[in-house]
Amino acid sequence: MEGFLQNIKIPALDELARENVYNGWRKLSKFSRNLGELENLVATIAAMTGKQPAIAKKAMILACGDHGIAKYGVSNFPQEVTIQMIEGYIKGKAGANILANHAGITNDDIFIVDIGVNADLSDKPQVINKKVAYSTQDFTQGPAMTREQAIASLKAGFDVAIDCIDKGYGVLVLSDMGIGNTTSSAAIASVFTDLPPEQTVGRGTGIGDKRLAIKREVVIKALEVNKPDKNDAIGVLSKVGGCELGGLAGVVIAGASRRVPVFVDGMNATASAIIAYGIFPECRHYMLPSHLSAEIGHKSMLEVMGLKPMLTANMRLGEGTGAGVFSPVLDAAIEVFNKIKH
Amino acid sequence: MEGFLQNIKIPALDELARENVYNGWRKLSKFSRNLGELENLVATIAAMTGKQPAIAKKAMILACGDHGIAKYGVSNFPQEVTIQMIEGYIKGKAGANILANHAGITNDDIFIVDIGVNADLSDKPQVINKKVAYSTQDFTQGPAMTREQAIASLKAGFDVAIDCIDKGYGVLVLSDMGIGNTTSSAAIASVFTDLPPEQTVGRGTGIGDKRLAIKREVVIKALEVNKPDKNDAIGVLSKVGGCELGGLAGVVIAGASRRVPVFVDGMNATASAIIAYGIFPECRHYMLPSHLSAEIGHKSMLEVMGLKPMLTANMRLGEGTGAGVFSPVLDAAIEVFNKIKH
Repeated sequence: MEGFLQNIKIPALDELARENVYNGWRKLSKFSRNLGELENLVATIAAMTGKQPAIAKKAMILACGDHGIAKYGVSNFPQEVTIQMIEGYIKGKAGANILANHAGITNDDIFIVDIGVNADLSDKPQVINKKVAYSTQDFTQGPAMTREQAIASLKAGFDVAIDCIDKGYGVLVLSDMGIGNTTSSAAIASVFTDLPPEQTVGRGTGIGDKRLAIKREVVIKALEVNKPDKNDAIGVLSKVGGCELGGLAGVVIAGASRRVPVFVDGMNATASAIIAYGIFPECRHYMLPSHLSAEIGHKSMLEVMGLKPMLTANMRLGEGTGAGVFSPVLDAAIEVFNKIKH
Repeated sequence: MEGFLQNIKIPALDELARENVYNGWRKLSKFSRNLGELENLVATIAAMTGKQPAIAKKAMILACGDHGIAKYGVSNFPQEVTIQMIEGYIKGKAGANILANHAGITNDDIFIVDIGVNADLSDKPQVINKKVAYSTQDFTQGPAMTREQAIASLKAGFDVAIDCIDKGYGVLVLSDMGIGNTTSSAAIASVFTDLPPEQTVGRGTGIGDKRLAIKREVVIKALEVNKPDKNDAIGVLSKVGGCELGGLAGVVIAGASRRVPVFVDGMNATASAIIAYGIFPECRHYMLPSHLSAEIGHKSMLEVMGLKPMLTANMRLGEGTGAGVFSPVLDAAIEVFNKIKH
């Protein structure tokens, strides 16, 4: 293990805490014990945290980065939209904010982190500056990042997440922004699922057939040129990943290392999570999938990690929006467990 | 159409209001327009209500009734448990209360209605007395109710629902209690889906193989003896239904007649909804399915009505518990629509 990662250990789940929750459910009259996945969810939270399940304050870590391959037109939007979206998050008016707010995650709980935006954002005090690069390189020509940059991106997200945990946040929500990042995520998905790009490259924010064909070509070329190997997840991240994806992988590692549940959202969050899983497979025990995205490739990555979300809403917005709908479900389950008479 | 039903008209959906919502979504940058089913949900609410979508106060109508066939041991619980559960609802401590409370439905918004409980509950001021019978009859020997009782049960739920709407509630949540009622619901499911009892009779609150075999036999005999015809939904209700199921069917009809969305929950709520659908097919336009239950037969009934829930949590508690998890999803969708910049 390299760099800061060599000091990290992912603790085993607390199976006793899990069993205590199931015992709690069992003490109920059988009539009240038919909450299915909600029961499992509460038991999982206990196993993760090693504590009596409680509704936790949630931090959304919104990692931002640009992608060299954006220039090929793999998205409907030019790279500048990354900054426009960041301005929307700062104002607190984007869809991600509103859905998060609805789930009790205030704008103060949303941490916007610049890890690879192709602009100097140091004049924006609301953006945490963890810049590793001004955009990744064009990965159809060589690696997106150096190995050092990949590790630095992991460290960037890791550090922000540890700060959040130290501040008392008990759930971390992965949220991503970066024009072109579903292209990178599709490449990561192909590496870890062994599926060809036809089965991992999707329409992102709604591209048409022409852009889809370009996007596929970009991923095919990226895999040919870089030959990423799933047994070297840091290598995958550096070759076909993105700064913000590395950052979110670091968030997952931080959560897992500190027994803090991590909400894994759609395509990009899951590609980040699978990088973390590739580095430390035990990370997957600390992931909660919030919904099944409409983006192809998402389900296959979840399956590799053995994750199955409860909610299928054909959302494909990303940015952690699934958390806004999953969070109340989790909290409801914990509330029932704690309030119902055992 | 008989009795009070002859004065009822189900209004058509407001397609203009629906289109206005889609126009609203379209005005957003395409980047913010990838909320999938959440977008459709908001448009559906507009079409139902004919108004600008708004988060509505929700009433949970908890209809209670007993079943003659309970004596065969189709449930793990004796009939007396119906009353014990009602006492739990009055205290506000049952799972249904806690999940509803979590979704903003206070105990004052939960209306407990006695339509067919096999006990005199008139000493309980918290229970609305709309009693049609002290339990249904054993429907393996003849009809569960007379046709007049079936219509009275519909009227009971209808009247409570209209009162709620007049008080300003903008969503009705179906909630059921009655030992043995999934047996009745399975019979109703077989009638409307044309599926044999093997594919509609499930384990309810978790019965073992022996009780499951009895339950199937009861449904087979009920169908043989009564020969319910799906073209006569009131006949189906009287022959193999239940007082509380009739009541909830009445709630659906009330909601639909007044443009008020109705949350359809698990097996029993859906069997009630399909009775309403059999009487007035247009009722289905006012239904929102809250989750896909683990009870077999549920999915098939939803399919007959063209309903597809977003949430699959293997819940099988009934009592409207699905609403507790679906309600925040709906409200989140409406919140995004209203707060995001169009």
